[in-house]
Amino acid sequence: MEKVVVRQLVRDTKRYKDKEVEINGWIRTNRDQKAFGFMNLNDGTHFNTLQVVYERVNLENFEEIAHLGVGSAVTIRGTLVETPNAKQPFEIKAKEVIVEGDCPESFPIQPKRHTREFLREIAHLRPRTNLFSAVFRVRSLIAYAIHKFFQEKGFVYVHSPIITASDAEGAGEMFRVTTMDLKNPALTEDGKVDYSEDFFGRSTNLTVSGQLEAEVFALAFRDVYTFGPTFRAENSNTARHAAEFWMIEPEIAFADLEDNMTLAEDMMKYIINYVLEQAPEEMEFFNKFVDKGLKGRLENIIKSQFARVSYTEAVEMLKKSGEKFQYPVEWGNDLQTEHERYLSEKVFKKPVFVTDYPKDIKAFYMRLNEDGKTVAAMDLLVPGVGEIIGGSQREERLDVLEQRMEEFSIDKEDMEWYLDLRRYGGVKHAGYGLGFERAVMYITGVSNIRDVIPFPRTVNSCEY
Amino acid sequence: MEKVVVRQLVRDTKRYKDKEVEINGWIRTNRDQKAFGFMNLNDGTHFNTLQVVYERVNLENFEEIAHLGVGSAVTIRGTLVETPNAKQPFEIKAKEVIVEGDCPESFPIQPKRHTREFLREIAHLRPRTNLFSAVFRVRSLIAYAIHKFFQEKGFVYVHSPIITASDAEGAGEMFRVTTMDLKNPALTEDGKVDYSEDFFGRSTNLTVSGQLEAEVFALAFRDVYTFGPTFRAENSNTARHAAEFWMIEPEIAFADLEDNMTLAEDMMKYIINYVLEQAPEEMEFFNKFVDKGLKGRLENIIKSQFARVSYTEAVEMLKKSGEKFQYPVEWGNDLQTEHERYLSEKVFKKPVFVTDYPKDIKAFYMRLNEDGKTVAAMDLLVPGVGEIIGGSQREERLDVLEQRMEEFSIDKEDMEWYLDLRRYGGVKHAGYGLGFERAVMYITGVSNIRDVIPFPRTVNSCEY
Repeated sequence: MEKVVVRQLVRDTKRYKDKEVEINGWIRTNRDQKAFGFMNLNDGTHFNTLQVVYERVNLENFEEIAHLGVGSAVTIRGTLVETPNAKQPFEIKAKEVIVEGDCPESFPIQPKRHTREFLREIAHLRPRTNLFSAVFRVRSLIAYAIHKFFQEKGFVYVHSPIITASDAEGAGEMFRVTTMDLKNPALTEDGKVDYSEDFFGRSTNLTVSGQLEAEVFALAFRDVYTFGPTFRAENSNTARHAAEFWMIEPEIAFADLEDNMTLAEDMMKYIINYVLEQAPEEMEFFNKFVDKGLKGRLENIIKSQFARVSYTEAVEMLKKSGEKFQYPVEWGNDLQTEHERYLSEKVFKKPVFVTDYPKDIKAFYMRLNEDGKTVAAMDLLVPGVGEIIGGSQREERLDVLEQRMEEFSIDKEDMEWYLDLRRYGGVKHAGYGLGFERAVMYITGVSNIRDVIPFPRTVNSCEY
Repeated sequence: MEKVVVRQLVRDTKRYKDKEVEINGWIRTNRDQKAFGFMNLNDGTHFNTLQVVYERVNLENFEEIAHLGVGSAVTIRGTLVETPNAKQPFEIKAKEVIVEGDCPESFPIQPKRHTREFLREIAHLRPRTNLFSAVFRVRSLIAYAIHKFFQEKGFVYVHSPIITASDAEGAGEMFRVTTMDLKNPALTEDGKVDYSEDFFGRSTNLTVSGQLEAEVFALAFRDVYTFGPTFRAENSNTARHAAEFWMIEPEIAFADLEDNMTLAEDMMKYIINYVLEQAPEEMEFFNKFVDKGLKGRLENIIKSQFARVSYTEAVEMLKKSGEKFQYPVEWGNDLQTEHERYLSEKVFKKPVFVTDYPKDIKAFYMRLNEDGKTVAAMDLLVPGVGEIIGGSQREERLDVLEQRMEEFSIDKEDMEWYLDLRRYGGVKHAGYGLGFERAVMYITGVSNIRDVIPFPRTVNSCEY
């Protein structure tokens, strides 16, 4: 008897028609009449459940099986029968049902509606619900689609370091990494904490970005990407912020801002297309129960050509819009989420790259434009979310970069290696960052970042 | 004129024969005679360099180009010409050479032999050498092969948390993650450090393993894997230890130790096969210059069926071998690398799974065997390295697990979620851990872990 999983049966039903199979799973529902019982099993390999029919005449342990609670694990041996008139296209007629692990009535996940807040409290059990089964399977598929996209283009995957001594990126508050005794740290003669006694012989933090290290590799391998965890020790308790999240940071050499936008657009379309193809049941579920209109929006994105507009033009558009915004629109100010959403939802009605931001509101490494006022930055704004990607062409001119570092008061001594990239065969290059969880939220329609991370880390919360 | 990369020209030479192309790259060598010059370019997309021939009659800037130093970046426009009698199958006859970024003679990477120790000091430039070009491209391919293997089998990729409050795994010394002021941490009334004032409201560390969290997901999705960074704050300055490294931890439900071994064997073969197919030039290079016999050893592994032997049998074999070991062989002691290598290199001459170790030298979560003395553990030992994979069937019986936790003095209170996995539809399940860098070392033949990590983190070293 062939051992199978539900995914196989769904994808290849014909092959198993009228065959005997062995299958495992967890009971989602179980109800019995006198002579019959029906259970819906989920084995984790497919979003949908499998209907199993069992009969008293066939099962010695009918009573035991009929009383099995939701969440119990069973092994079924039986025959696949097509059911053309039923809701599901086939079911299993059980010859044997073996209890693998029972489940008491205290099991918190019962077949009823649970709030997401409640489910966050039991993050170790919530993957057994429809919503989180769909979210985490799609999360996995998005991660793979990203690797597949870049690898098929010949990009080299770089593991940028997690623990870092650098604080040049300045992207936000950092977590300290230490093995020192917090009560009695080693001190220097003048009473300061002596980090030369710490594990790495210096002060170290968790990375906020792998970009600078990715540049090292782009200037050797041409096309590279990172995909790893990054951290912010920011005290922001919002639905969109987590202290630990994953980022994708491609970096391409011999490339400018145009190439960078083309890459980002191709990547977004590739990922969305992959998920729609690979997870039709999950996407249907999100579309129906989480975010009505989601599928149409995503399908539209695959078909559309992303708009491109300069920051200066965008500011003009916002000013002329007559819309009342909470934050004032003024050349030189950063765009707020309300402005970003207005641009992508109302003005362009599709994803839009905004480019060439004022230099003072962007990072030191972004390439200074000829006007001396703006830098070759790009943000991708998408309907429903706002900014999802931020990137730029990098400053490859040594003298300009040094000047910019001075303006930002960045210590050059620690950054000689970064300057070396401009000294030795430096070339124009560009890259961007995609917050992985933002992408998952965007594609699933789930609005709280805590609901797309297996075990989220936020201010005052680090469970499991 | 089509813009191309070297990889395209190599893989699809016929298509570009006698065509004009535009190509970029960094100069590896450059020499000129009166009328001609030859340069070898590497553009990072392929291991081999591309020969470019340029003539004085064609180039206005011949003098400038002829004097370009190693490391300079150029754009070439020219025609691909087949060269059936030369070492390389084709070359580019340049019509135009544009300098993208020059490179002074102080560039530390010259076309001569550099020691690996020297190259570690300039980790930001070493990817531009043959060795590290090969290592990091293969590292990327291995990472992708791992994702591809599991995704094609329908496994769900789980991002287990990096920052954790758990210390139950007990796999080693941990790094503290904190935002407290080391000089003046908040204190409780009785003078202890008050971690309730720390960012997460409790004491937190960097993870040493994602296994326990992977078990959560296996008991919902059946087949899952993690692939993320893990950390050890161990003061071991060896060629095989780093403070930060990546791990792959698959976890499979409705599965026992046999299934676990089959999965590990299939995975190892899949990865090796993928790299041999995708990186023939790099593997040839490793075989020739890094580890003679490497390719034969790897090809042999793909063809062989891995051996399986119990720890108890293995101890008998070692005792009877007549070999003089540095560490005594005694039932109850852990196997040392010398024993592991002897078993795989001398006894079995291929990879071998050693199973069912004494319970006292293995972790609390491993399933207790019927004999009450051993647990359903498995280590995969490979020639040349020793242990490369460690895994086990997990203890799914609540009462036995609780008993084992007591023996190991593990606080159950923090682990209720882990026990819940046995309370609610618990099933037999198994998994293993593969140290990613160990796998890269094994497949490339590179013997120091510092040389397979982009920016290695070890005791007293955290550069870039």
